[in-house]
Amino acid sequence: MAGNTYGQLFRITTFGESHGPAIGVIIDGCPAGLEFDPTFLQAELARRRPGQSALVTQRKEPDTAEILSGLFEGKTTGTPISIVIRNTNQKSKDYSHIATQYRPSHADYTYDAKYGHRDYRGGGRSSARETASRVAAAAFAKTLLATAGVHVQGFVERVGDITLSTWPKELSAETIESNPVRAATKEIAELMETRIREVRKAGDTIGGTVGCRVTGVPAGWGEPAFDKLHAELGKAMLSINACQGFEYGSGFAGTHMLGSEHNDAFETVEGKVRTKTNKSGGIQGGISNGMPIEFRAAFKPVATIMQDQDSIDADGNPVTVEGKGRHDPCVLPRAVPIVEAMAALVLADFMLRHRSSKV
Amino acid sequence: MAGNTYGQLFRITTFGESHGPAIGVIIDGCPAGLEFDPTFLQAELARRRPGQSALVTQRKEPDTAEILSGLFEGKTTGTPISIVIRNTNQKSKDYSHIATQYRPSHADYTYDAKYGHRDYRGGGRSSARETASRVAAAAFAKTLLATAGVHVQGFVERVGDITLSTWPKELSAETIESNPVRAATKEIAELMETRIREVRKAGDTIGGTVGCRVTGVPAGWGEPAFDKLHAELGKAMLSINACQGFEYGSGFAGTHMLGSEHNDAFETVEGKVRTKTNKSGGIQGGISNGMPIEFRAAFKPVATIMQDQDSIDADGNPVTVEGKGRHDPCVLPRAVPIVEAMAALVLADFMLRHRSSKV
Amino acid sequence: MAGNTYGQLFRITTFGESHGPAIGVIIDGCPAGLEFDPTFLQAELARRRPGQSALVTQRKEPDTAEILSGLFEGKTTGTPISIVIRNTNQKSKDYSHIATQYRPSHADYTYDAKYGHRDYRGGGRSSARETASRVAAAAFAKTLLATAGVHVQGFVERVGDITLSTWPKELSAETIESNPVRAATKEIAELMETRIREVRKAGDTIGGTVGCRVTGVPAGWGEPAFDKLHAELGKAMLSINACQGFEYGSGFAGTHMLGSEHNDAFETVEGKVRTKTNKSGGIQGGISNGMPIEFRAAFKPVATIMQDQDSIDADGNPVTVEGKGRHDPCVLPRAVPIVEAMAALVLADFMLRHRSSKV
Amino acid sequence: MAGNTYGQLFRITTFGESHGPAIGVIIDGCPAGLEFDPTFLQAELARRRPGQSALVTQRKEPDTAEILSGLFEGKTTGTPISIVIRNTNQKSKDYSHIATQYRPSHADYTYDAKYGHRDYRGGGRSSARETASRVAAAAFAKTLLATAGVHVQGFVERVGDITLSTWPKELSAETIESNPVRAATKEIAELMETRIREVRKAGDTIGGTVGCRVTGVPAGWGEPAFDKLHAELGKAMLSINACQGFEYGSGFAGTHMLGSEHNDAFETVEGKVRTKTNKSGGIQGGISNGMPIEFRAAFKPVATIMQDQDSIDADGNPVTVEGKGRHDPCVLPRAVPIVEAMAALVLADFMLRHRSSKV
Repeated sequence: MAGNTYGQLFRITTFGESHGPAIGVIIDGCPAGLEFDPTFLQAELARRRPGQSALVTQRKEPDTAEILSGLFEGKTTGTPISIVIRNTNQKSKDYSHIATQYRPSHADYTYDAKYGHRDYRGGGRSSARETASRVAAAAFAKTLLATAGVHVQGFVERVGDITLSTWPKELSAETIESNPVRAATKEIAELMETRIREVRKAGDTIGGTVGCRVTGVPAGWGEPAFDKLHAELGKAMLSINACQGFEYGSGFAGTHMLGSEHNDAFETVEGKVRTKTNKSGGIQGGISNGMPIEFRAAFKPVATIMQDQDSIDADGNPVTVEGKGRHDPCVLPRAVPIVEAMAALVLADFMLRHRSSKV
Repeated sequence: MAGNTYGQLFRITTFGESHGPAIGVIIDGCPAGLEFDPTFLQAELARRRPGQSALVTQRKEPDTAEILSGLFEGKTTGTPISIVIRNTNQKSKDYSHIATQYRPSHADYTYDAKYGHRDYRGGGRSSARETASRVAAAAFAKTLLATAGVHVQGFVERVGDITLSTWPKELSAETIESNPVRAATKEIAELMETRIREVRKAGDTIGGTVGCRVTGVPAGWGEPAFDKLHAELGKAMLSINACQGFEYGSGFAGTHMLGSEHNDAFETVEGKVRTKTNKSGGIQGGISNGMPIEFRAAFKPVATIMQDQDSIDADGNPVTVEGKGRHDPCVLPRAVPIVEAMAALVLADFMLRHRSSKV
Repeated sequence: MAGNTYGQLFRITTFGESHGPAIGVIIDGCPAGLEFDPTFLQAELARRRPGQSALVTQRKEPDTAEILSGLFEGKTTGTPISIVIRNTNQKSKDYSHIATQYRPSHADYTYDAKYGHRDYRGGGRSSARETASRVAAAAFAKTLLATAGVHVQGFVERVGDITLSTWPKELSAETIESNPVRAATKEIAELMETRIREVRKAGDTIGGTVGCRVTGVPAGWGEPAFDKLHAELGKAMLSINACQGFEYGSGFAGTHMLGSEHNDAFETVEGKVRTKTNKSGGIQGGISNGMPIEFRAAFKPVATIMQDQDSIDADGNPVTVEGKGRHDPCVLPRAVPIVEAMAALVLADFMLRHRSSKV
Repeated sequence: MAGNTYGQLFRITTFGESHGPAIGVIIDGCPAGLEFDPTFLQAELARRRPGQSALVTQRKEPDTAEILSGLFEGKTTGTPISIVIRNTNQKSKDYSHIATQYRPSHADYTYDAKYGHRDYRGGGRSSARETASRVAAAAFAKTLLATAGVHVQGFVERVGDITLSTWPKELSAETIESNPVRAATKEIAELMETRIREVRKAGDTIGGTVGCRVTGVPAGWGEPAFDKLHAELGKAMLSINACQGFEYGSGFAGTHMLGSEHNDAFETVEGKVRTKTNKSGGIQGGISNGMPIEFRAAFKPVATIMQDQDSIDADGNPVTVEGKGRHDPCVLPRAVPIVEAMAALVLADFMLRHRSSKV
């Protein structure tokens, strides 16, 4: 109920504050007998880690994961998988100035309102560091999905006003990982990179969107009423720090259309059912239809900027919040593995839930 | 797990197909001692009902709700509240033609893929008729929220390309309910109405957006990790039929901004904490900050159109799906009470969850 | 959270007070494609119904169930199954005397303490009438289990001091249903019947135990930590009105033994793993081992007696609670179908949960 | 769903195998602002630890708990509390002989049947070592309950045939903790100790019962239908390794009584409602009535004995399981803190759930 758990059958519970001893996660419900490679988990964490390039925060977080349970002789045992990641970079004094003041558009004030007592160091639980636990857990979800031929691929679609207008027919993981923005093409990556460098120089931050495509999902995954596949994807994306919006298929743009323009006609191609267009984003009535699942998550510009800002302290008095420390000019590149992680967790859960659909 | 339940402490479970004997809902967790007026429930159902105006489907659904339990001498008892709404307009023969063919962008195909056996009449469980159960349940949620001074107000913000560019400072329920579109101003309502009539004449449908503002929520509601207040709002909206997208606060537009433009500065006004702007949409770190909660849900054009369409049947053979029957040229006006209902259900749940935040 | 839901994947939510318009249940998660015979449901309700014989209460409850959803052309659709049973025997005046006084060992006082406002008529929600909803839902669970060869059989093992010392090797449903006590042998049934008639004449009530054996469960059902198969069976039984205790396998008696006497040795018989004895009651480490599952539920003597009793009213003043109305001298015979129902609901849930155990 | 989570609002998830790197637990939902003393947690673990006396196993498990999150400046923050306990005594070779053979009345066979792949070392997840996580979590639950004046006290009531016939009016924690059996009186402790020593010498094991009394619970805790207070207590106890039965109040013995003997008459004493007797064990209709809550859990003799036993291996061939290693002749003394822990977890959960009972 306190909301630190996600999923029904493939279920994760995360813990940890940015400046406590460690963060981590328990995965409960990963089926037994899954071959798992811990180096894949470590590689996924590396994709999310700060300090990968000049475009993201220069904080150093080695993010070494230790698997404490649930894995035996290289395979899952069906029992809870526990993963712990130590916090090695806890410079508490860097954050002491925020103990009594509320940073604009951060969670300092709302945590105080909710709990009365909070770990103010580096945002504590509200820090995006919590998402490392999700990425770690998702390494198992991705491995499970791979056994069903399902692949999740995210990329930075837009930075500020610089947009990739059309998604490539095939998203290349190699291309995406070989540019520091994680854009889908080399050309747009360069434009985005230039823009992020400008913003960084100004001590400012910039937002944008992450696109994601999931291939290989068979028709039939998802639940029809409240737990529609896209509703869970939406919740999962919106639960990521700084996410302000979600759309799937034709999304907001599609709502400008007429029904006759928007409907996806069914056809049979080589004995397989498909739709001629995919404005439904691979989901109809909340259930996958076998087409690629496509959605988009909107990320606001990060609230931490290198400029002084007006605010108040815990007593309600005006204060100036100073712009200092290390910051992320643009979270988009690091958001890609997190978006993928949440999508994988959603789909792994529905993969298992689907097993109870029929007698 | 089968996804027909929403909420944790204020929890509803809906049932029913459009052409079975009845639809309905159980509310479990509504606190005892709440004074409830059944005529309010009936009035809310009337707002959602088809046939209210020429702008929406002319199907007749009287939607008379019977409360079977949980209410005694005008007040809730803390035990489950069960509500049943009989289906009185079941013309099964109208729908027999879809038993073996898949309507484009409907759930016919995906239900078959998931379950193997489905009630094909009128969409069965996938029909928007299911949302009447949600509206009925939300009458209790709204009544509970009112005891805390919380009010939920939705309106049609956009129809196709016709947009209300700026939200009024105060949304007038009277204005909204007095025009058939449920627009926020009389002027935009007329433009929208004209557009819907055009589309209707063409046997087509049109999409748009519903805006919603929730006032009176104190700072502190919501949970910080997966169950962020906006993540649950997003899931709730996306679980409504035809919803393709969700955003809160500055939403997708805000992602074009710089952090220095986007941050909401705190200030103290008459001893009360508030923010100078509200790009955060009343939510920071997943928790309400005491400002109005503002969000937007995108609705695609309804898939049922009065035009013939190409499709396939259950054997994969090409068929023509005929455009006939009664249809909704634009769901937006009827979506308003449903959006409000889901928002009220989310907030009632967080109101109760908040009670466990502190010792 | 308000506790009116049982099960994870095969999940039921019950509603209704004894003297409101109706009681009923929603089953969410019953797989699609299950052939179901509504007359079986009605027959199961008849087994629980009052007025079957002179041994149980003479109240008349026709208990006609209406299935409102989830069943189409004789098979389940995978969508929620809703069942409503009207209350036809609501003589509210019979119960008016308890509006302000607390019957000994009933829930009148605790409901008032919890909720502040309660439906006092006939016990309201605390009435055993609620169990009719469980029996109705379990008709689907039993049908699902039958597809896996699983059969649940309960019987009255003891009434007061009259005990069936050894369980028959094969329990005969025919024998059990052909005597009004639902005992496992005709001989013990007669002794029990005589005892119940004596107690009834004295305006008193008597307790005892129900035994239950589940056959056909394969090895592997159940979960290892908190949701052990016997822990869920225990919760399920203890959730039945008047149940004061639960044991499985050797139970309390087994705790007098030494480990060397108690252990069940494994053996292979005709290629099938089994144990020579079954002190484990078919469950080891919380998971079924393929042997018959055997357990026992203890039912206290019903609190409603035909004798005057000392008590207090809502203001704390002493009152005499009069012994009047119709009552059950012994709930055991009617408890049998309820015990079976809860066992079937537990096992149907684990049957589905088991589907996620392995990759 | 995989059952490693207990509780709704005060919710714990445990992980870990006996011979993996560590075991542990996440507590989600502990309210913020609770002052917590980590030395109390350590003291509780010491009560459960092996090697405390000659009566229990001589294995050495230092059981040092590390709190990784959720506690800041001595108080809980409302965020997840994570506790890790390293396994320091992992002698894997001791257990290699059970990799391919099934110990009688252990979970080896059922785990294999369920998962196909298991950590066979020392029972892995099925080892009672998992309960250390529960005891650690319950230190927080007990601290929370103490703020409401609620105290949980367990004791060994019976070992084999040696029973404490009447519970003392006041249970003395000092007396209980000062004898190695954790009996309620010094006299019975000596008899029990002698019996356990005899059994130990014979390389055998012995069962018995743990009694538990909870004082200070106000009237109104618990939920009326499936989640009755005693149903959750029952599930919680039965989820402990080796627990074969549960009863509350008069329990199985009470089912031999007549209703006129069994009912608890209400009275008002010094303005406070109470009952003259307490056969209801402090719970009526599933809800606490303000009297002490009293229950009993039955523990079978431990399956690990120092004698050779017949069994089979994974291929179904007959084998002799040798009696060697270190073992617990009687788990009862160590079961006391575990019984208390589970009771505290149940009650802390209901304490929070109760907050939503009324408007």
